[in-house]
Amino acid sequence: MSFTELKREVYEANMELQRRGLVIYTFGNVSQIDRDKGVIAIKPSGVSYDQMKADDMVIVDLENNIVEGSMRPSSDTKTHVHLYRHFDAIGGVTHTHSTYATAWAQAKQSIPCLGTTHADYVHGDITCTRELTDEQVNGDYELETGIQITDAYQDRDPKAAPMVIVAGHAPFTWGKDAAQSVYHAALLEEIARMAYLTRTLDPHAAELKKAVMDKHYLRKHGKNAYYGQSK
Amino acid sequence: MSFTELKREVYEANMELQRRGLVIYTFGNVSQIDRDKGVIAIKPSGVSYDQMKADDMVIVDLENNIVEGSMRPSSDTKTHVHLYRHFDAIGGVTHTHSTYATAWAQAKQSIPCLGTTHADYVHGDITCTRELTDEQVNGDYELETGIQITDAYQDRDPKAAPMVIVAGHAPFTWGKDAAQSVYHAALLEEIARMAYLTRTLDPHAAELKKAVMDKHYLRKHGKNAYYGQSK
Amino acid sequence: MSFTELKREVYEANMELQRRGLVIYTFGNVSQIDRDKGVIAIKPSGVSYDQMKADDMVIVDLENNIVEGSMRPSSDTKTHVHLYRHFDAIGGVTHTHSTYATAWAQAKQSIPCLGTTHADYVHGDITCTRELTDEQVNGDYELETGIQITDAYQDRDPKAAPMVIVAGHAPFTWGKDAAQSVYHAALLEEIARMAYLTRTLDPHAAELKKAVMDKHYLRKHGKNAYYGQSK
Amino acid sequence: MSFTELKREVYEANMELQRRGLVIYTFGNVSQIDRDKGVIAIKPSGVSYDQMKADDMVIVDLENNIVEGSMRPSSDTKTHVHLYRHFDAIGGVTHTHSTYATAWAQAKQSIPCLGTTHADYVHGDITCTRELTDEQVNGDYELETGIQITDAYQDRDPKAAPMVIVAGHAPFTWGKDAAQSVYHAALLEEIARMAYLTRTLDPHAAELKKAVMDKHYLRKHGKNAYYGQSK
Repeated sequence: MSFTELKREVYEANMELQRRGLVIYTFGNVSQIDRDKGVIAIKPSGVSYDQMKADDMVIVDLENNIVEGSMRPSSDTKTHVHLYRHFDAIGGVTHTHSTYATAWAQAKQSIPCLGTTHADYVHGDITCTRELTDEQVNGDYELETGIQITDAYQDRDPKAAPMVIVAGHAPFTWGKDAAQSVYHAALLEEIARMAYLTRTLDPHAAELKKAVMDKHYLRKHGKNAYYGQSK
Repeated sequence: MSFTELKREVYEANMELQRRGLVIYTFGNVSQIDRDKGVIAIKPSGVSYDQMKADDMVIVDLENNIVEGSMRPSSDTKTHVHLYRHFDAIGGVTHTHSTYATAWAQAKQSIPCLGTTHADYVHGDITCTRELTDEQVNGDYELETGIQITDAYQDRDPKAAPMVIVAGHAPFTWGKDAAQSVYHAALLEEIARMAYLTRTLDPHAAELKKAVMDKHYLRKHGKNAYYGQSK
Repeated sequence: MSFTELKREVYEANMELQRRGLVIYTFGNVSQIDRDKGVIAIKPSGVSYDQMKADDMVIVDLENNIVEGSMRPSSDTKTHVHLYRHFDAIGGVTHTHSTYATAWAQAKQSIPCLGTTHADYVHGDITCTRELTDEQVNGDYELETGIQITDAYQDRDPKAAPMVIVAGHAPFTWGKDAAQSVYHAALLEEIARMAYLTRTLDPHAAELKKAVMDKHYLRKHGKNAYYGQSK
Repeated sequence: MSFTELKREVYEANMELQRRGLVIYTFGNVSQIDRDKGVIAIKPSGVSYDQMKADDMVIVDLENNIVEGSMRPSSDTKTHVHLYRHFDAIGGVTHTHSTYATAWAQAKQSIPCLGTTHADYVHGDITCTRELTDEQVNGDYELETGIQITDAYQDRDPKAAPMVIVAGHAPFTWGKDAAQSVYHAALLEEIARMAYLTRTLDPHAAELKKAVMDKHYLRKHGKNAYYGQSK
């Protein structure tokens, strides 16, 4: 894939964030990796969606060096790069401050699996990371944010839970490419909203039973999936 | 009615789900039965609303066999078929994961009749089904979901309560045809939202008194109805 | 004003209900009185906003007889007529089931004056009526609904509180004409939403102090008003 | 800057309030100062956004005298003028009754810094002012509202917290010009909404730790900022 094509795909995925109501002003950013070339394309920092063009996307290598582009890349670039280096199977990363997912992050609570909408896309809870120490905050902050996330996946397949919430901050999601990471960001926001409504209606609402969690997740994922047209 | 006409009506009803804000991406599905021909038309599985055409609807018989169509039918087809077999008077079925109705399903609570908006359309509460056993989940899951629903109507007329919520899952609604089942899905979402707001404002808010429940339901339904232009 | 002009104004006011998000499907109705002719124009019963034309409005006299029109008037007509007979100074009436105002009605609670947004438009709380007895429900129900409302205003000027919520049901609002009654319906919904958010954030949030209630109400109303361009 | 240009900028900023969903009807007002000329332009009182033209903006001096304009200025003009006189560094002021920020004002609670979305724009909490005494309410009310606000900033830089909520009333925000004050009003509404959701999910949700508050604020502000393209 040429840099032009990569930037175009990342641009389109970023614009979808705004269309789905997941961002306002300059909030959020999406990237995609070209693993053959060892580079990612990512949104420039602090540019509003209304003024952004495909050619404004910045190409960065996996040591966080700018390879092509006249603008400064997203201030969260190091977090994205860390996720690509650590999670071999992913091709796109999205970061938003979408409202309901961010409320769970601010409450520093993992989102429990309360229903099949959640179970269809995530196997188990949507984890809220541990908090950073003051040293980590004052050190290489954006890299530490990446480490916060990957530490939460030491015993977990990132494909089985392509979304996480960072304590006190906001969500990150990923997928096979930029577009799918945005899709997961939109699903997360809806799942977070349903879980908020459920728990404010009944603070003791219980998690879905394990058999249903497995059933729904496996209807859509893995070799015995039977949802959709071509899995 | 020809298959073409049946598919057209089911397609339009599915598209209405998106216009009413009841679904995102590939969520939800609507079907309609032709009782003379013994077939239903239903949304194909996992197809997004933006790309769907009327001709993509799948024709299935009451033994769940595909009669016409090149795509796989909704993974919830067996639930729909069970409802048509069990509820003689219905002509259309809708399944969504609409936000507020799903929150009640996740809280595993029936929606109590708290006001006349509810009483206008449903006589009594909107029942939350029992949960499935692990065996049922691991057995013929989508058929068992249908049985969960019909079990809740053993002593109840499905026309007097054309909407139900499945515990831990989401709502199903029905009507005389596909379009009316979608209408009931939209009404359910609004009723569920009002009930959520009422109960979070006052967890002990009481049910409407029986006389008002009857009055409002019978203003709109039955031989003495006086709402609307031609009942 | 000719019947044609009266119907046109009432039609436009009804359509505004939909544009403001206060109704779905056939919910709600607006009327306006011509006191010289002793008639009101009102929305026909059970007609959806998308299909309604100005000429569908029904002209009814103050004994609830149809004077002109081929359709059945709103099933709530007797409530409207009672309000016009009882409140001399009003020219328009609106009924909706708008979401937040209806939630307060379902909780059977008056909306306390918690802030200046409320105080700008209503002097004191937005009263929730008493409930009807079973006899009243089974008697002349829509007339009794009107009496429920006027009973709540025995010691109160309807102009100082142009909105009320009927217990277990939904709001009615009024104004100098149909358009202003819709304006009050939209303001009520926003005030109800703010009060809901305030009380779920802090169930003990106190009412605004009397001096601020008076100040804000009198900034906008009465002979010393100084808000706006020409009072 | 000519009066015509000043009025144009203030008009555009006022219209943006409506596009961002921060006002309905005639709610809200925005102003901007020309410090060289010693005048501000401000929205006229009680005019709806749909009918307003740029030339309707009113030019007022810092003694609250009308310098140019045929309409009455916003009834909140004295509050704006007091803020410009007291906060040297600001160039624009916005007042809204946006829903979630107003709910916090009605609950008379400051908005705690619960996450990085807040920390990105405000250093510390978003203060709720003290209440006015009855004497102050019945005195020069709009001036007293300004004093309420500036009293809350005696030990605080208004640039580090360009937004405040007035107890029992609603928010005021400011910025280097009218447009930036509207931007802060929109950010406040989103921050207020996230904080509402967090605290209703967990009433004891803790404030963000100091190190993260500082980190996020200083990523975007001050001489070591590294967010965006040109700071």
